[in-house]
Amino acid sequence: MIKNRSFIEISSFSNPRIKYLIKLRDKRVRDKENQFTIEGYREIHRAFHSKKITFHAIFTSPEYFIGKNENKLIEKINTLTFVLPRKIFAKISYRDRPDGLLALCESPNFTFDIDKELDGDFFVIVEGVEKPGNLGTIIRTAEGAGVSSLIVADPRIDILNPNVIRSSTGILFTLPIYTCELKEIISYLKAKNIDIIGVSPECKTVFYDYNFAKPVALLFGSEQYGLSEFAKSNLDDSVSIPMKGEADSLNLAISSGIVMYEVTKQKSVLQKN
Amino acid sequence: MIKNRSFIEISSFSNPRIKYLIKLRDKRVRDKENQFTIEGYREIHRAFHSKKITFHAIFTSPEYFIGKNENKLIEKINTLTFVLPRKIFAKISYRDRPDGLLALCESPNFTFDIDKELDGDFFVIVEGVEKPGNLGTIIRTAEGAGVSSLIVADPRIDILNPNVIRSSTGILFTLPIYTCELKEIISYLKAKNIDIIGVSPECKTVFYDYNFAKPVALLFGSEQYGLSEFAKSNLDDSVSIPMKGEADSLNLAISSGIVMYEVTKQKSVLQKN
Repeated sequence: MIKNRSFIEISSFSNPRIKYLIKLRDKRVRDKENQFTIEGYREIHRAFHSKKITFHAIFTSPEYFIGKNENKLIEKINTLTFVLPRKIFAKISYRDRPDGLLALCESPNFTFDIDKELDGDFFVIVEGVEKPGNLGTIIRTAEGAGVSSLIVADPRIDILNPNVIRSSTGILFTLPIYTCELKEIISYLKAKNIDIIGVSPECKTVFYDYNFAKPVALLFGSEQYGLSEFAKSNLDDSVSIPMKGEADSLNLAISSGIVMYEVTKQKSVLQKN
Repeated sequence: MIKNRSFIEISSFSNPRIKYLIKLRDKRVRDKENQFTIEGYREIHRAFHSKKITFHAIFTSPEYFIGKNENKLIEKINTLTFVLPRKIFAKISYRDRPDGLLALCESPNFTFDIDKELDGDFFVIVEGVEKPGNLGTIIRTAEGAGVSSLIVADPRIDILNPNVIRSSTGILFTLPIYTCELKEIISYLKAKNIDIIGVSPECKTVFYDYNFAKPVALLFGSEQYGLSEFAKSNLDDSVSIPMKGEADSLNLAISSGIVMYEVTKQKSVLQKN
């Protein structure tokens, strides 16, 4: 089944490793142990190839495999491997449709170091994000749009929450991502003369009428509260997304996707000319 | 507490109405009973003002109220009203943070009638959608972008799923929305000479290089399978969203939001000139 490798079978729900994996769903346990889990072939594959993640163990249930490359990936990662029956895997899985792979890893450090230079000229800052699914989707979209770095400022959630990893499809490990206080990234960007453009329904300039063909940092507020007063008082400019109907706002991940791709478009048109 | 109205108290978990509301989470029960629930002030408010929804009862727990207008809304709807203690409301609620309002309503009919004319010149078709949260988010974005009608073709989920209602923020009841087989809407649009534009990662034309300044129907495939062969063989054109990183696709709700707003933009520029 798994060639050239020894693997350890787990056959009891009360195995302490199983209990430990379930405990790691709690942020406090992740922080204390400095460990977290990555579930799913695509996510583990991206984490492994990013070379940023240290793997401590893989938990696998081949009955769930849906592709052909699961064993190859397990061999490449080359760490302690546990094999579980379907029922026990279902218990450690965080998904409706598990694919039989879950990895135990060392928590990476996302802390922004103000003394290091950020590469590129297209930054996105998300302030006080509240929903893991939104953050993961923003990460996935940011990579597609060619964002240089994503800064998660003053988050209200843990960036290693399983739902962030899942909705980012593992792009959390490949895109440059940093966490910090909003004031830190603002002072960094101001020192570098990079314009900070807030996106807010209150602003009159429509996003597609704005000229993004320059180094920019887009700044988005939280789902519930929008941009903080501190954020607003530090913007170089702001733009809004026009709303035709009776709803007064869009989902945060949608708003950020729409404006990020407008920047992408304007930068690509600039490159062509 | 609730002025000028009689209301009925429910004090037991085993009250048959409570049990019935929980059963309505199951699509088969909703279909059989032709009833469904709407949870949340914003969602119930939008459903009521759409004048498309018949209310049978309201279940309320004032301890949860977060605004000032809940009682006004209950008075306006003017139907059978039940008052529940916090603990019992928590049981019928589908949310992490209930706001104390849940309505029992008659299921509206979304079936597309091919003999009726669709208003407007900007249509969006979603084929085989699988995730209620995505459908709800698409609905919310479509209304913001000024889409004339949204057609949910061959859905794999129930349009009255609580997560559709929640992520649409109740816009499900205000935007013109129809369900049908894909072939029905395609033959309708072909008869009206409205171009059907597929959005697919396989296509070479980048969405922002395409001229949408005409009557159009955007067609999006399902999360897992993309556009069906039948859909592909019926397109007038197709466009893709360029991807810069290693991920090969975006979340469906994000893709549709990005392309919908490009159409909005091109139509608005056309109106200005």
